[in-house]
Amino acid sequence: MTQRVMTIAMNGVTGRMGHRHHLVRSVLAMREQGGLKLADGTVLWPEPVLVGRDGPKLAALAASHGLTKWTTVLDEVLSDPNVDVYFDAQATSARGPALAAAIEAGKAVYSEKPVAPSLPEALRLAAAARRAGVPNGAVQDKLFLPGIRKLRRLVEGGALGRVLSMRGEFGYWVFEGDWQPAQRPSWNYRAEDGGGIVMDMFCHWRYLLDGVIAPVRSVYAQVATHIPERWDEKGRPYRATADDAAYAVFELEGGVVAQVNSSWATRVFRDELVEFQLDGTEGSAVAGLLRCRFQHRGVTPAATWDPDAPPGHDFRSLWQEVPENGATGKAFKLQWEQFLSHVAVGAPLPWDLLAGARGVQLAELALQSAREGRKVDVPALDLAVEEPVARVASS
Amino acid sequence: MTQRVMTIAMNGVTGRMGHRHHLVRSVLAMREQGGLKLADGTVLWPEPVLVGRDGPKLAALAASHGLTKWTTVLDEVLSDPNVDVYFDAQATSARGPALAAAIEAGKAVYSEKPVAPSLPEALRLAAAARRAGVPNGAVQDKLFLPGIRKLRRLVEGGALGRVLSMRGEFGYWVFEGDWQPAQRPSWNYRAEDGGGIVMDMFCHWRYLLDGVIAPVRSVYAQVATHIPERWDEKGRPYRATADDAAYAVFELEGGVVAQVNSSWATRVFRDELVEFQLDGTEGSAVAGLLRCRFQHRGVTPAATWDPDAPPGHDFRSLWQEVPENGATGKAFKLQWEQFLSHVAVGAPLPWDLLAGARGVQLAELALQSAREGRKVDVPALDLAVEEPVARVASS
Amino acid sequence: MTQRVMTIAMNGVTGRMGHRHHLVRSVLAMREQGGLKLADGTVLWPEPVLVGRDGPKLAALAASHGLTKWTTVLDEVLSDPNVDVYFDAQATSARGPALAAAIEAGKAVYSEKPVAPSLPEALRLAAAARRAGVPNGAVQDKLFLPGIRKLRRLVEGGALGRVLSMRGEFGYWVFEGDWQPAQRPSWNYRAEDGGGIVMDMFCHWRYLLDGVIAPVRSVYAQVATHIPERWDEKGRPYRATADDAAYAVFELEGGVVAQVNSSWATRVFRDELVEFQLDGTEGSAVAGLLRCRFQHRGVTPAATWDPDAPPGHDFRSLWQEVPENGATGKAFKLQWEQFLSHVAVGAPLPWDLLAGARGVQLAELALQSAREGRKVDVPALDLAVEEPVARVASS
Amino acid sequence: MTQRVMTIAMNGVTGRMGHRHHLVRSVLAMREQGGLKLADGTVLWPEPVLVGRDGPKLAALAASHGLTKWTTVLDEVLSDPNVDVYFDAQATSARGPALAAAIEAGKAVYSEKPVAPSLPEALRLAAAARRAGVPNGAVQDKLFLPGIRKLRRLVEGGALGRVLSMRGEFGYWVFEGDWQPAQRPSWNYRAEDGGGIVMDMFCHWRYLLDGVIAPVRSVYAQVATHIPERWDEKGRPYRATADDAAYAVFELEGGVVAQVNSSWATRVFRDELVEFQLDGTEGSAVAGLLRCRFQHRGVTPAATWDPDAPPGHDFRSLWQEVPENGATGKAFKLQWEQFLSHVAVGAPLPWDLLAGARGVQLAELALQSAREGRKVDVPALDLAVEEPVARVASS
Repeated sequence: MTQRVMTIAMNGVTGRMGHRHHLVRSVLAMREQGGLKLADGTVLWPEPVLVGRDGPKLAALAASHGLTKWTTVLDEVLSDPNVDVYFDAQATSARGPALAAAIEAGKAVYSEKPVAPSLPEALRLAAAARRAGVPNGAVQDKLFLPGIRKLRRLVEGGALGRVLSMRGEFGYWVFEGDWQPAQRPSWNYRAEDGGGIVMDMFCHWRYLLDGVIAPVRSVYAQVATHIPERWDEKGRPYRATADDAAYAVFELEGGVVAQVNSSWATRVFRDELVEFQLDGTEGSAVAGLLRCRFQHRGVTPAATWDPDAPPGHDFRSLWQEVPENGATGKAFKLQWEQFLSHVAVGAPLPWDLLAGARGVQLAELALQSAREGRKVDVPALDLAVEEPVARVASS
Repeated sequence: MTQRVMTIAMNGVTGRMGHRHHLVRSVLAMREQGGLKLADGTVLWPEPVLVGRDGPKLAALAASHGLTKWTTVLDEVLSDPNVDVYFDAQATSARGPALAAAIEAGKAVYSEKPVAPSLPEALRLAAAARRAGVPNGAVQDKLFLPGIRKLRRLVEGGALGRVLSMRGEFGYWVFEGDWQPAQRPSWNYRAEDGGGIVMDMFCHWRYLLDGVIAPVRSVYAQVATHIPERWDEKGRPYRATADDAAYAVFELEGGVVAQVNSSWATRVFRDELVEFQLDGTEGSAVAGLLRCRFQHRGVTPAATWDPDAPPGHDFRSLWQEVPENGATGKAFKLQWEQFLSHVAVGAPLPWDLLAGARGVQLAELALQSAREGRKVDVPALDLAVEEPVARVASS
Repeated sequence: MTQRVMTIAMNGVTGRMGHRHHLVRSVLAMREQGGLKLADGTVLWPEPVLVGRDGPKLAALAASHGLTKWTTVLDEVLSDPNVDVYFDAQATSARGPALAAAIEAGKAVYSEKPVAPSLPEALRLAAAARRAGVPNGAVQDKLFLPGIRKLRRLVEGGALGRVLSMRGEFGYWVFEGDWQPAQRPSWNYRAEDGGGIVMDMFCHWRYLLDGVIAPVRSVYAQVATHIPERWDEKGRPYRATADDAAYAVFELEGGVVAQVNSSWATRVFRDELVEFQLDGTEGSAVAGLLRCRFQHRGVTPAATWDPDAPPGHDFRSLWQEVPENGATGKAFKLQWEQFLSHVAVGAPLPWDLLAGARGVQLAELALQSAREGRKVDVPALDLAVEEPVARVASS
Repeated sequence: MTQRVMTIAMNGVTGRMGHRHHLVRSVLAMREQGGLKLADGTVLWPEPVLVGRDGPKLAALAASHGLTKWTTVLDEVLSDPNVDVYFDAQATSARGPALAAAIEAGKAVYSEKPVAPSLPEALRLAAAARRAGVPNGAVQDKLFLPGIRKLRRLVEGGALGRVLSMRGEFGYWVFEGDWQPAQRPSWNYRAEDGGGIVMDMFCHWRYLLDGVIAPVRSVYAQVATHIPERWDEKGRPYRATADDAAYAVFELEGGVVAQVNSSWATRVFRDELVEFQLDGTEGSAVAGLLRCRFQHRGVTPAATWDPDAPPGHDFRSLWQEVPENGATGKAFKLQWEQFLSHVAVGAPLPWDLLAGARGVQLAELALQSAREGRKVDVPALDLAVEEPVARVASS
């Protein structure tokens, strides 16, 4: 059994997401299970180097996980020929320059979303990676969740027939922060700090719609700041300036309509924090993070409208739980495995920086739609078209 | 105990809605319970005269309910001084002229929705009724459903605090008509016959939004004809030309956002065919036709987003069923009782022809929004402003 | 990461409460989790020194927990400059002199309740601690129980509106000791040994009422010795001379009435051994040690009195379980952490010896009320007023 | 089979209680089952004569039940030798003079509670009835409820051993009347109209305590007006001046303590609107209107106090439902049967006007206790002592 060490500079893993999902449950988990077995039989051994700004914190984090390599100097890892991959989970504003430098240094790059705070910058990064010929990827974790994988299996297997529409509900009540602590950081609610639910979630909606059903062609969004005053991590009141809810209608290729609500000011009357219902000519599915249920047209009840009578069916009981059949594993780790296989042996990887840029595009157009009160087209993005722009911009 | 007979010409009660809800479960049900007791102690005895186009069918219908009066000649009842009320449940296209004639004849008028196929005609009718000084009403039955009454009680009692948003899901799968019979008439799916889900349902959404939360101020709608081919009552295929789904976002006074999906091409993963979720600062409610559930902010779970973990709560179990506390009775009959009390002793009736016109207005503006791909303002409607227009238009 | 050792002399931890709750589940549990992390980032490491009268027992106890330090000589720890904190869980009669000596020696002191067998002595201790400027605390563990924390969250978040009343039921059947062993020590039932349910429980009621609702302003108590003959730990019959039940009515600031029954001679028809129901204008809550349930006025059933009919509602099912939302952890340990943070870095601590004295005050006044058959005022206690008295009394 | 007609003048049966419980479910129900079979084999046929102030209302009421006799002139029935019994369910203020006149006329008298608005008047009536030698009774319906009958069976059968204590909880939330209608008449909340929960309920507590356990010897009561503003039957706000809650502690003969809360401002976390728990040396019982549960000391769990652990038992499941074993029937009707048997054939009847006076006494002393903030003795009442007073008053 050949082992191959792959050294990964991980920048921004002192934060909750970076630490929990990327370092512990993905990279370290791969080590705990003896490395990642590749298609060619070799075993890939990921070797993280922690990168960040707070030395003592990095040292403690490394020590607590039995790691020895960490640095506060990005150039140190970028100029180190042993480093194969640069991963970035920093705050969005810091991400672009670091990714650009890593691409410049010839590293394979893997980026959290949004890949950049604006579409032009996201496109410049994607174009730069393509020109440099480095493997590149953007985190699109929800595609790897058990519920979504079961849903994709149904759609791709034709169980829904022609997909007609999608409904999505994402959200939960984020406490205001006064009498109960908020479950999200306060910057999420400040536009001036890059907050807002559209910028946070529409990147996800993009790759889910594109990846599960069909490419997005237009967007209409109504946004709101339902809770205008909140209390921050230190109990101080602050004014919420970013959108905390967005009510969107997308048109997809082929006439599919996708209606998706996203909100941090709604109480959950569902099984999971996010749920998508897809209706098709042959059947319908309801998928969350973990579960997926299905109703074939052959078991669809003949519902009739009679306001005076109790409902004639226990509707939810008429849906069938879709079995796992292998749709298990942690989403972030699965995508890490796919990315590292791509880097190591060229396994296919559709979720590159350009796909990441599409997410940024949708968020920007949704906000534009909300400002202008009209439906906005979502033009196809590809680097053939965008490269000159990118070239100009980078010159 | 004084009894007072009130004679009601009922036009269009051979159809399913008119027969079941208006004749049998409302007017005849009042007779079965000994009449309607009015505020002044007298008992009102409703005496229906059936009106329609098909004599034998009317004769049979009257006989089956022990009634003796019916006619195929509208003028006969309108010129009869014993007739107090004219009720219309005909097809929408026939309704306007009949209502106008009844108003002209000085009858109290009560109309199914939509009160007219277009806003100008609806306004002319409302203005004519006001000028003539006749009592007038429009059916707005959903306000009287147990679930909606419980919801209104919560909203009006302040249990939700400031209402932030509403989500509405209405719909079910209407079979295409080939291998299973359709549950709705085929004209519903033909634009040329006045069909379409927007014209059918947005009248309801108007009075529900206005009456439960706050006046509607703008509408955005995306419509679709998801199932383009259907089979009619005789098994013949036909082309569906009307919208069978509408995805709408409303803005209400005070910044409330109401997102409502209406569809005849969706499978039901709910407890009831229509459900509304209202979120407010103090609590949230989920109401259907019959049930209403509530979650106060004091029992709102601190949901956190962890895609790798199963949901930390059985979310639906954290909602409390709202007790009936008197919210019972059939919706149509309750509104009939309110209308007849209004005619007999002047009990207040906010749901007049002008309110009916507001429903038509919203449906029209929603269709305009769908055509133009933009949010459309919903101007306030009242007859003080509209009367001159109405006069000109009717001259 | 700085570590700071804090040495704690623990007196009276051979008893059940002291051993289980204070030594094992609090101090040793903190060590098992790597010490207590303070606000300034340092980690506090508690180092217990066991103090008691029975050398061999102490030696065995220390050994069984891997501890090395114990002594039967109180002065030894009090004169040891390395000892930071003196904790006392002895019998009440022995507590006063030991606490006084510890204060005199400049130790931070932490005391089980009641802090003293009489109010003057309790006040003298509180005044001495204040004059000496030593950190001081009294165990008020029930405030830290999950059920009570959820209840406080509801009250403080305004979910009950204006609180009107409280009902409390505490108790269970303590076997007489003949055919089944008693679950409590026999001294609890002998007045001459400091027994009695009032002295045992009213200290708790004081800080619960003061801390959750509003300050207590008057007390009425009816006490009883329902079971006059019991059997002691050795199976010998003895005469119970102390109260084994108390039926009390408190008035709190703002007109709230709190009615609390405490009994060792009642059988439990509840979910938990103690339960409190609070009724307020906006909602009601029922809290025990662990659980807390809530009913908002929006889901309050319209109960009507009809002795001939079965109850119209399954009343208990109309209450909603309040989610944990972080209200976890062992009560005693949480207060220990709060006390040690107070000693180490001055974290706020409202539960000092004066608060402990308030508990003794309420127990004394309740017994006076029971003797005199009248409601007794509960004057506000504070050391500014009481210090001269305390000085005189101690001279 | 001999039939014997007994004519009963029923005064005040247009009110809800009088109509539903006394006329329909008691007297008319006896007629529906063919009359009341007496111990001597004859069948008693009750013949009601309705008495009241509102002629048309009486006529309609009589007609609706197929009765022919009614009058607005009390003297008419009192001077009619065919009338055997005078029953009074009028407002309390009107009751005394009517009962006195009926006694004077030699009629058997049966009275709703309270028998009079004050103790002296109640005693005068009892004394007058004794002097006149007429059969007399006071409604004490709760003694005849299934739950209470099962409880009495347990107590009288010795299943509880020596009774130690009772806890009683009566109450429910009476809506304020603004956003939901109040379930009780507004006069209940106005002291000036004879309202108040003490005057309403303590008559019941008296006969329950006296009749099920032991005679009441003292009372302490704390009263409150928790909801100071309410809305009346016409939606007008009014100031509540009467007590809407009372927290009482009674001492009974033999040292039993009975603690009873009564409230119209509490939400129900029980199985029934009223529940009593009795604890005794041999066992305990929990009784409501319908149900009664029992726990013998042989199945009493050895509860121990451990605040860190979940309760070791599902306590309620350890109680056994007490079987009906004949404890059925409507409470009011059962007492009517007992009273009519007493009148007809001298069956024993302990619940006479003197028992009714004891209820008034307890209510008055409870209010005195609340005013004075002290426990008040309840002296034994009997007519041997009181007759001279009564004589003076009636002279």
